[in-house]
Amino acid sequence: MAEIPAALRELIETGPLAHFVTLNADGGPQLSVIWIGLDGDEIVSGHMTHSQKVRNVERDPRVVVSLEGPRTPGVFLAEHAVLRGRARVEQGGAYELLNRLGKRYVGPDFTFPVSNGDGPGDGWVLRTTVERIGGVGPWAW
Amino acid sequence: MAEIPAALRELIETGPLAHFVTLNADGGPQLSVIWIGLDGDEIVSGHMTHSQKVRNVERDPRVVVSLEGPRTPGVFLAEHAVLRGRARVEQGGAYELLNRLGKRYVGPDFTFPVSNGDGPGDGWVLRTTVERIGGVGPWAW
Repeated sequence: MAEIPAALRELIETGPLAHFVTLNADGGPQLSVIWIGLDGDEIVSGHMTHSQKVRNVERDPRVVVSLEGPRTPGVFLAEHAVLRGRARVEQGGAYELLNRLGKRYVGPDFTFPVSNGDGPGDGWVLRTTVERIGGVGPWAW
Repeated sequence: MAEIPAALRELIETGPLAHFVTLNADGGPQLSVIWIGLDGDEIVSGHMTHSQKVRNVERDPRVVVSLEGPRTPGVFLAEHAVLRGRARVEQGGAYELLNRLGKRYVGPDFTFPVSNGDGPGDGWVLRTTVERIGGVGPWAW
């Protein structure tokens, strides 16, 4: 398991879109663009439905998450991080997590549009343990 | 094969980073952040070395390419495109393509730092036929 370096932690805390890759049942790649956060050195994401990527992780834990850094005109290849790891599924906790992440991704007054009470339950949280960090930036090795 | 809608064509022509997913020999996902262009309705990318992703496509053509649209503060989920398709490898043509794409990704005066004459040959071009377009934006269906 890799520690998340400080520069990458700071990038994630700015709320960059995460390109989250899982594997479909036929072995083909699946990618969704989602919100992510950190819980210690784990990447966490919330899913109110038992979506394709949640079902994929239940079958095969291998995932990749990539993020872009700030857009800097004129550089050869802009900063980005590519995190390879293994995810696991936890039931519940998605609403609280999405509500918290939305304040970073959308704005401080954001509340997630599905409440605990009248939504389809409390969803699923994916927790990804990072095994390797690549890309271009101070976090890549 | 999907046609590339005009709005997506325009996005690609602004030079967004492409998150390019292939499959490793062990079936695990591999992701690199690269430059892309269009040739008709095919996505093209240039590779001066016989890199992991080129070797992966030789073995299994299934790929996903994702791109972010303009960053718009305060939206629920920023515009992005997720393109699922099949890639094939063409030998040669990478230098000319990278030199051309660099003018869009880096700046109008850009020339790629490896010349035809003294580089490791003329590399490889990946050509991706898009089968399905998803994401959030006017190109998603």
